[in-house]
Amino acid sequence: MKKLVILRHGESIWNKKNIFTGWIDVKLSKKGILEAKNAGKILKKNKFSFDIAYTSLLNRAIHTTWEILNKLNLTWIKIYKTWKLNERHYGKLQGLNKNKVLKKYGKVKFQEWRRSFFINPPKINENDIQYPGKDIKYKNLNKNKIPLGESLLDTYNRVIPYWKKNIYKNILNNKLILIVAHGNSLRALIKYIENISDKNISNYEIPTGKPLIYEYKDEFKIKDKYYL
Amino acid sequence: MKKLVILRHGESIWNKKNIFTGWIDVKLSKKGILEAKNAGKILKKNKFSFDIAYTSLLNRAIHTTWEILNKLNLTWIKIYKTWKLNERHYGKLQGLNKNKVLKKYGKVKFQEWRRSFFINPPKINENDIQYPGKDIKYKNLNKNKIPLGESLLDTYNRVIPYWKKNIYKNILNNKLILIVAHGNSLRALIKYIENISDKNISNYEIPTGKPLIYEYKDEFKIKDKYYL
Repeated sequence: MKKLVILRHGESIWNKKNIFTGWIDVKLSKKGILEAKNAGKILKKNKFSFDIAYTSLLNRAIHTTWEILNKLNLTWIKIYKTWKLNERHYGKLQGLNKNKVLKKYGKVKFQEWRRSFFINPPKINENDIQYPGKDIKYKNLNKNKIPLGESLLDTYNRVIPYWKKNIYKNILNNKLILIVAHGNSLRALIKYIENISDKNISNYEIPTGKPLIYEYKDEFKIKDKYYL
Repeated sequence: MKKLVILRHGESIWNKKNIFTGWIDVKLSKKGILEAKNAGKILKKNKFSFDIAYTSLLNRAIHTTWEILNKLNLTWIKIYKTWKLNERHYGKLQGLNKNKVLKKYGKVKFQEWRRSFFINPPKINENDIQYPGKDIKYKNLNKNKIPLGESLLDTYNRVIPYWKKNIYKNILNNKLILIVAHGNSLRALIKYIENISDKNISNYEIPTGKPLIYEYKDEFKIKDKYYL
């Protein structure tokens, strides 16, 4: 049985502080680094190996990938880093404390922004300090692709084409693959892989730093799924 | 003025133990990790940035690259990892304590093996536990390219074609480049860049973890060279 491994990055310093992060490039907390190392240890103990790793352009996911590969003595494998696996862009909510947003806008709006599949957060504009077009990481990204505030659907619409074109192709080539990304880019991917409804995906929670294993046959027919 | 940065990985656990390492994939020592972090700090303090990093397939060089890029908030840039930047393959000397080799074979032989441009160390064969063809890292490498014990000339003959075809091409494309590699693969590169004689390159020492800066104009006309 072949295995795909998916993992949400370890705790970041803003997960810890309960702040909407999105595309803001905050680092792992000390606990997050430990979570990443532990994910590597448990994968090693269970004799996992990988040919290719995919991650986002955000430090917290890349750093998690590195810690895992270091534990597995696989630092030499190919690591593809792409903005398409970035966290959902949270628009004007980025940088705001979640409790304060909840108090200011009320529970209904708050839950809509966090958990609806279709609803966008309030958008930033090009003058905003957080406009990704100002960040050297995204200098080669077409302006019409730069997000200003994404719904989960928007995130889905960049994650799934990347999966189909790049990752799935390598699954068909019998490559062993590790994907390290974010709560919402992984929620989008899992929705697609497991065919979860627009409604039910909203409540799907992904723990940080826990390897999610899909066992599959042939052209990615899933036979089993579990957390290590 | 544009700048190319070259760096020898931080101290490995076998540098510390004075053992011939070559292609054996030993990790950085604690001091080596600190050296790498410090290299990142000093590059940051001096406002260096990079578009692309090149390193070998060996953990001690990759880990050094990662620590540097993490300090510079550049974990997201492209990192090309290639066996062509690996340390010189030290044949049967790999894994042996340098003092013991010196005592057993005498100073002349010892210095020839370490410092002649043309002389190979005693070669391993395909049954040797250290034969790179047994290592999953090199599974795509043609058998006739797998080294059994390299002279510095042999190392030069893989490093320089890689420089010309890949790195130099990106220098012409105005990319800012960081190269993190090994004592002998860098000795080969520096011999070529600075046009150092076969005799003089032998005594050229490269410190671990110290950024070597080449300032250049146009198509890599070197104007200045210094360690940070």
